[in-house]
Amino acid sequence: MLSLLSLRTRIAGGTLTPQGALALVREAIAAREPEIGALVSLDANPAVPTAGPLAGIAFGVKDVIDTADLPTQMGSPIYAGWRPKADAPAVARLRALGGVALAKTTTTAFAFMDPTETRNPNAPGRTPGGSSAGSAAAVAAGMLPLALGTQTGGSVIRPAAFCGTVGVKPSFRLLPTVGMKCFSWSLDTLGLFAATVPDAAHALALLTDWPEIERAGDAVPRIGLLVPEFCAEPEPDGLDALHRAARSAEAAGAVLRQLALPPLYGQAFGLHGTIQDFEGIRALAWEYDHRRDALAPLLRDQLDAAGAIPAEAYDAARRVVRAARSGFRGVLAEAGLDVVLTLPAPGAAPQGYASTGDSRFNRLWTLLGLPCVSVPVPGDGPPLGVQAVAPFGEDARALAAARFVERALAR
Amino acid sequence: MLSLLSLRTRIAGGTLTPQGALALVREAIAAREPEIGALVSLDANPAVPTAGPLAGIAFGVKDVIDTADLPTQMGSPIYAGWRPKADAPAVARLRALGGVALAKTTTTAFAFMDPTETRNPNAPGRTPGGSSAGSAAAVAAGMLPLALGTQTGGSVIRPAAFCGTVGVKPSFRLLPTVGMKCFSWSLDTLGLFAATVPDAAHALALLTDWPEIERAGDAVPRIGLLVPEFCAEPEPDGLDALHRAARSAEAAGAVLRQLALPPLYGQAFGLHGTIQDFEGIRALAWEYDHRRDALAPLLRDQLDAAGAIPAEAYDAARRVVRAARSGFRGVLAEAGLDVVLTLPAPGAAPQGYASTGDSRFNRLWTLLGLPCVSVPVPGDGPPLGVQAVAPFGEDARALAAARFVERALAR
Repeated sequence: MLSLLSLRTRIAGGTLTPQGALALVREAIAAREPEIGALVSLDANPAVPTAGPLAGIAFGVKDVIDTADLPTQMGSPIYAGWRPKADAPAVARLRALGGVALAKTTTTAFAFMDPTETRNPNAPGRTPGGSSAGSAAAVAAGMLPLALGTQTGGSVIRPAAFCGTVGVKPSFRLLPTVGMKCFSWSLDTLGLFAATVPDAAHALALLTDWPEIERAGDAVPRIGLLVPEFCAEPEPDGLDALHRAARSAEAAGAVLRQLALPPLYGQAFGLHGTIQDFEGIRALAWEYDHRRDALAPLLRDQLDAAGAIPAEAYDAARRVVRAARSGFRGVLAEAGLDVVLTLPAPGAAPQGYASTGDSRFNRLWTLLGLPCVSVPVPGDGPPLGVQAVAPFGEDARALAAARFVERALAR
Repeated sequence: MLSLLSLRTRIAGGTLTPQGALALVREAIAAREPEIGALVSLDANPAVPTAGPLAGIAFGVKDVIDTADLPTQMGSPIYAGWRPKADAPAVARLRALGGVALAKTTTTAFAFMDPTETRNPNAPGRTPGGSSAGSAAAVAAGMLPLALGTQTGGSVIRPAAFCGTVGVKPSFRLLPTVGMKCFSWSLDTLGLFAATVPDAAHALALLTDWPEIERAGDAVPRIGLLVPEFCAEPEPDGLDALHRAARSAEAAGAVLRQLALPPLYGQAFGLHGTIQDFEGIRALAWEYDHRRDALAPLLRDQLDAAGAIPAEAYDAARRVVRAARSGFRGVLAEAGLDVVLTLPAPGAAPQGYASTGDSRFNRLWTLLGLPCVSVPVPGDGPPLGVQAVAPFGEDARALAAARFVERALAR
């Protein structure tokens, strides 16, 4: 993979120019993209700033995020060739820092579950996951050092794990969702993919202008190991990856304890779909009313059913989630823990391309708005990962713990 | 003014057709629009549904809200002729109910404070207020029975009071803000204008598919009379209107008590700008980075200063606001009150067109996400109003109290 920090170190040291960094990216794209299909469009001749902390860093933008210079097509024929007026704020910010918005990356239609044509660069014959398929695959294939994605269920963390790259879903609204096609305004979260945790943390620190976010500190994390009882069991390979990561972290000095969440969290978990779909049928009202036949089939079926969710069920779900959100910090503190370590997906990417995989190990954290970081767990088979989760607003803590685990696994 | 319920009653009774109702609207527009300038664009030949609970109801859409059939120009030359792909969900919903999106209405640039060319139909020589100037003026002039607006500071309630119409700013996110040009994602709220409280309540009940919202019930409200101490004093005419409304409500049987808010609310009030502007410079990053010279001057100056707000100040402000939000229901309950009755603006619309007026009697309620309804207070001079405010999610209660006051004032 292309490390953002390595590229920046070489550029700062004068051994690589920003144009040279772009050339590396173009070479990688020429070599890998034909087999992977992660990119929807490419800026053939972008301006390459020579100054700024991201000068020379090409980034990908999931195709549900607005860009002024490239089409934004939502993974749907309804938006074929669509050109928004403005860059989404996150894109504008990366550009202002010197980054180059080089490519739009594939997305499932409206970031739902109908698979893309994208192939998994590190697991032939298996899905790259979704919905941020192109961003995960492009970074994992070494085509881009940075890519933006979005998560409403598990659309950043899951493809990161399936493709073998680092994925970060920050705290809800740490990054503005302005200029993103909305599916669920309570859940949609902008996230990113990079080669390593320090690469991702650096990008997030710059995006948010919050330098503390990448200061890992020296403290060893107190880790709560969680295999949620409220959803179907993980697969053996996923569980094995979690335990390997946990043992490595323990061997590196981390405090490790089993964690079980109060029943409220199982209840909240079960309500994700109520909130997502109640909002989804409203957010996509125009598309549903006027272009239903052009909607991808899984999305169309989901929206057909979503119309029946009563407002009372939505309100009740929101109340449960509010209670679960406000209680989470206390749950960890009472257990004397800093972070949760859990699965980013049930196991490796499923065989075939009929499904983008299962988001059941992601939905609770999205619902609670908590910062999540997925870290690859090295092994012999298809990519596997592990996920660190911290309380709301403790993105720096989630990243520090993920970095600790990443280093422990590399020993 | 054109009453939505009266038009619907006539249509349901067979004495008016939907096309006939549209013809009334067109006549009114032909008569009043040349002097008022409330409309940016008009659909010359819209489809007029003959079925649906809003069949025959033409509505206006503030020009920061996306429409597929009419341009959406944000009150700014930057978006001249801009055509979004889709209707915003609120527009799609009104259309699905049979309503006709007849016109886009004027807005200050990006819904900030630079005045529009719109004139106040009921107060010659005075501003109609802002930022939803066109929607307020069009309804107040009897040109439209319904119009959508948005409020980030006081942009629905204030122009409603200045123009002499009913304005509703619902609880935060009761109506989706999807498809609205974002200024502040924590504050932007979609609202509406109508001739009377029952008209507005009916529209909101249909928009939200929540029939209870318009069931006023028979209970007399327990009203807390509030003249906030934490902002500069109101003008004598504004205060007089509040007291007249209060006396009328009391004479009609309402319980009335003076209310004072704890110091936390004064503190929160003072932080509105920190949140609005910190988010605004991010939400409008593309426009600021690429088209700063084309921004309206007040907005440009505000965004110039907004860049200096540190993330820590924003985070601290959010924490204060969160505490104030979660405590408000308790403050009212402890005082044995159902709603707050307060000023919608310092007084009548200011003379001239240099300013859209002052939002100091609106900002706290927007910040707290509370439902607000502005009701005209009849008198001899320029329009004045009174504002009812209820706890979060109690939109039905705010509307019921506003209706009670509206009826009491009509006696």
